[in-house]
Amino acid sequence: MINLILCGGSGTRLWPISRSLMPKQFARLFDGASLFQRTVKTNSRICSAQYIVSNAEQYFLAKDQLEEVGANDVRFLLEPVGRNTAPAIALACLGLDPEDIVLVSPSDHVIRKAEAYEECLRKAEEFAKKGFMVTFGITPTGPETGYGYIEANGEDVKRFVEKPDLETAKKYVASGRFFWNSGIFCFKAATFLDELSTYSPDILTAAKIAFANAKKENKDALVRVDHEDMMNIPSNSIDYAVMEKSAKVKVVPSDIGWSDLGAFDSLYGEFDHDENGNNINAKHLGIGSKNSLVLGGQRQICTIDLDNMLIVDTPDALLVAPLASSQKVKKVVDELKARGSDLPKVPQTVNRPWGTYSVLESSDRYKMKRIVVRPGERLSLQKHLHRSEHWVVVSGTATVTVGDKVFYVRPNESTYIPSGTIHRLQNEGKLPLVIVEVQVGEYTGEDDIIRVQDDYKRS
Amino acid sequence: MINLILCGGSGTRLWPISRSLMPKQFARLFDGASLFQRTVKTNSRICSAQYIVSNAEQYFLAKDQLEEVGANDVRFLLEPVGRNTAPAIALACLGLDPEDIVLVSPSDHVIRKAEAYEECLRKAEEFAKKGFMVTFGITPTGPETGYGYIEANGEDVKRFVEKPDLETAKKYVASGRFFWNSGIFCFKAATFLDELSTYSPDILTAAKIAFANAKKENKDALVRVDHEDMMNIPSNSIDYAVMEKSAKVKVVPSDIGWSDLGAFDSLYGEFDHDENGNNINAKHLGIGSKNSLVLGGQRQICTIDLDNMLIVDTPDALLVAPLASSQKVKKVVDELKARGSDLPKVPQTVNRPWGTYSVLESSDRYKMKRIVVRPGERLSLQKHLHRSEHWVVVSGTATVTVGDKVFYVRPNESTYIPSGTIHRLQNEGKLPLVIVEVQVGEYTGEDDIIRVQDDYKRS
Repeated sequence: MINLILCGGSGTRLWPISRSLMPKQFARLFDGASLFQRTVKTNSRICSAQYIVSNAEQYFLAKDQLEEVGANDVRFLLEPVGRNTAPAIALACLGLDPEDIVLVSPSDHVIRKAEAYEECLRKAEEFAKKGFMVTFGITPTGPETGYGYIEANGEDVKRFVEKPDLETAKKYVASGRFFWNSGIFCFKAATFLDELSTYSPDILTAAKIAFANAKKENKDALVRVDHEDMMNIPSNSIDYAVMEKSAKVKVVPSDIGWSDLGAFDSLYGEFDHDENGNNINAKHLGIGSKNSLVLGGQRQICTIDLDNMLIVDTPDALLVAPLASSQKVKKVVDELKARGSDLPKVPQTVNRPWGTYSVLESSDRYKMKRIVVRPGERLSLQKHLHRSEHWVVVSGTATVTVGDKVFYVRPNESTYIPSGTIHRLQNEGKLPLVIVEVQVGEYTGEDDIIRVQDDYKRS
Repeated sequence: MINLILCGGSGTRLWPISRSLMPKQFARLFDGASLFQRTVKTNSRICSAQYIVSNAEQYFLAKDQLEEVGANDVRFLLEPVGRNTAPAIALACLGLDPEDIVLVSPSDHVIRKAEAYEECLRKAEEFAKKGFMVTFGITPTGPETGYGYIEANGEDVKRFVEKPDLETAKKYVASGRFFWNSGIFCFKAATFLDELSTYSPDILTAAKIAFANAKKENKDALVRVDHEDMMNIPSNSIDYAVMEKSAKVKVVPSDIGWSDLGAFDSLYGEFDHDENGNNINAKHLGIGSKNSLVLGGQRQICTIDLDNMLIVDTPDALLVAPLASSQKVKKVVDELKARGSDLPKVPQTVNRPWGTYSVLESSDRYKMKRIVVRPGERLSLQKHLHRSEHWVVVSGTATVTVGDKVFYVRPNESTYIPSGTIHRLQNEGKLPLVIVEVQVGEYTGEDDIIRVQDDYKRS
């Protein structure tokens, strides 16, 4: 079985932990592990390989996180822009053997009962082999109004229904016939493409063109779809495009401890709690505080007499709200966007193909960054017109190019890059290279960069 | 009239804005102005000169803030350790002309009605000239249990009473004869010393010895009391030591819009509020939040559905609590102290005689600081054994000594100080010198410093 992992996400619902350049599946929520990594691990009990569909911007982020968890046989399909799930799955299936069994899974859900889940996967695989389209129906734990429901008749689907109101949801749950639509699916690649050609042929036609035109690298293990081709595929969900119309759908009732972590209140339950019901966080000192979710790891956080509150502390943004108001985080993000803020988009630590950088202070005439370059990687050969840069190596050894000179800069040594001078930072060593960069100039924006050569094809 | 300003304070009640090295009177709470500066300004309508009693550690902080508000004729008495108000006032009065009229005022109170206050001061001055000890009795605005009360009979004091319980406080307020004890006093220096010799002669005797031994500089405008001498003075408040015993006390009823800002809830009222009752703060985005006090200026703060909440955001510590729990901030500070944290003591921006420094990031092998040196000032001639330093000048021009060389470092230039090397940073210019310092070494603690020469006598 091949695990097709969908890595979309706008990064709004868990803001400021998630940002549009750091959707929640990649945020390291649990002891340094991300939901994406957890998904890969959980599914690799059954799936022999991963096929990642993600935004092109998140390719290196996903690749790094996969390497960390030891996932090796991984293929990527990079979308320049998201067009919902049906086009994403179609493009991926076009790159697979028609007989491959595909497990489509979102990358940002939690599944707590691994063994029950494994059993469900086995059942689904059997159905898929027989040419069915399998959807996983989550046994409801309450009358949730935030999910679509599936009405089942045994293993057959009677109908899909939209998000209900509370009264309807209560009836659904009481009936015992209704399940939450989880967004997890299983089928043969050929079955999906056949059904798509029947019920949404326009998507399939456009997807075939896009796939044919896509740039393929690493023996087809990296597929980059063209922007215009992608925009030509009608945007639609797999539910609307196929599942709700197909006669070949089976449902596997799944009591698997599932959550889509759609808001901070559902995240609360994923942590261990102290005797007061607060999530365990060494940086939180609570006096009389209880039942609260306090996220943040750098500064000291002190609270008094909080109950059912949410605090999300990040280096550049702070969120405080009653846990019960978690659903309104989107409003905050919308308002920030309306004000032209970068905070909905850019996380404080920004991933780059070669490593990461974090802005430590940004002021009128200067900016300070901590830069980490992974072993064997190098930044582009570049120059800036409005800023000079001072680099102090903190650990590792830097191979530095300035103009036509190449030299090493060792820990506790520094070098200077005048504005307008071609330069490059490289880590030829075996350990991460950490440098502190002080930029000085009249303008220190990220877009003041002219790339002359780039290993990652950004020039 | 001479304004004797008492600058004690433990920095706990408005933590994390206040710290023990940054008591609340020096924190820039209001558009960059501190309570200390406000006190000086308010009283200088009447008082021709200031006499500051402060902890020796806060001398340069107080001096800077006085210069900012243009206070010129200022004397200082520096205590190595606080022994409560009676010894502080005694030491100050010993340095004054016996006929001087002294207005004793705390440095961290708010007085909103400047004209009513001025009128009260005129009355007090008259009494003081006639040899009375004047206390200002604040017209109570409610049955506060946090203050001592004064029972008056016209202009005479009937008795001082301790903090009452709520029932008693209600009776006091209803009677119309009771006033809050404000800690503001007015008398001739000679009157105070006479009454002290009558009612607490041990304090006066020890204070005389301490004053005689004290180091006097700048034509007695700067008096530094010796630590042992100070410890020999019995610790007591002016209320206990003199006011409650003297037969020469008069009370001036004062309806002057007074607050001691004893906790964040009383600070709430000092700010302008938006239509939702939140203090105006450009860094706060509230969705449905109301009646809340949100303090902080560097990061974006977003809140949802808060009511009557307190958020205090500083670069190294965050406090969140219901405003009604403001009195419990002390518990937070006590717990942090018990855990060995530096946060109750050290503010993120630390004042030094020559300027300020802020730690921007502190990590295992390095520390980054922003350093601001005031025009005409210089750091000590010093060396470090465990760290090297990289200095990048951002604005201003640095005069740098490294070993036996002295040279200029201009904006966008840098220099390097190897560990063990004697060095000095100086600002000979007319504008502030701003540098970014990257320290690299196995240990970057503040105590790794050997001072060879210091303008501020710290070597």
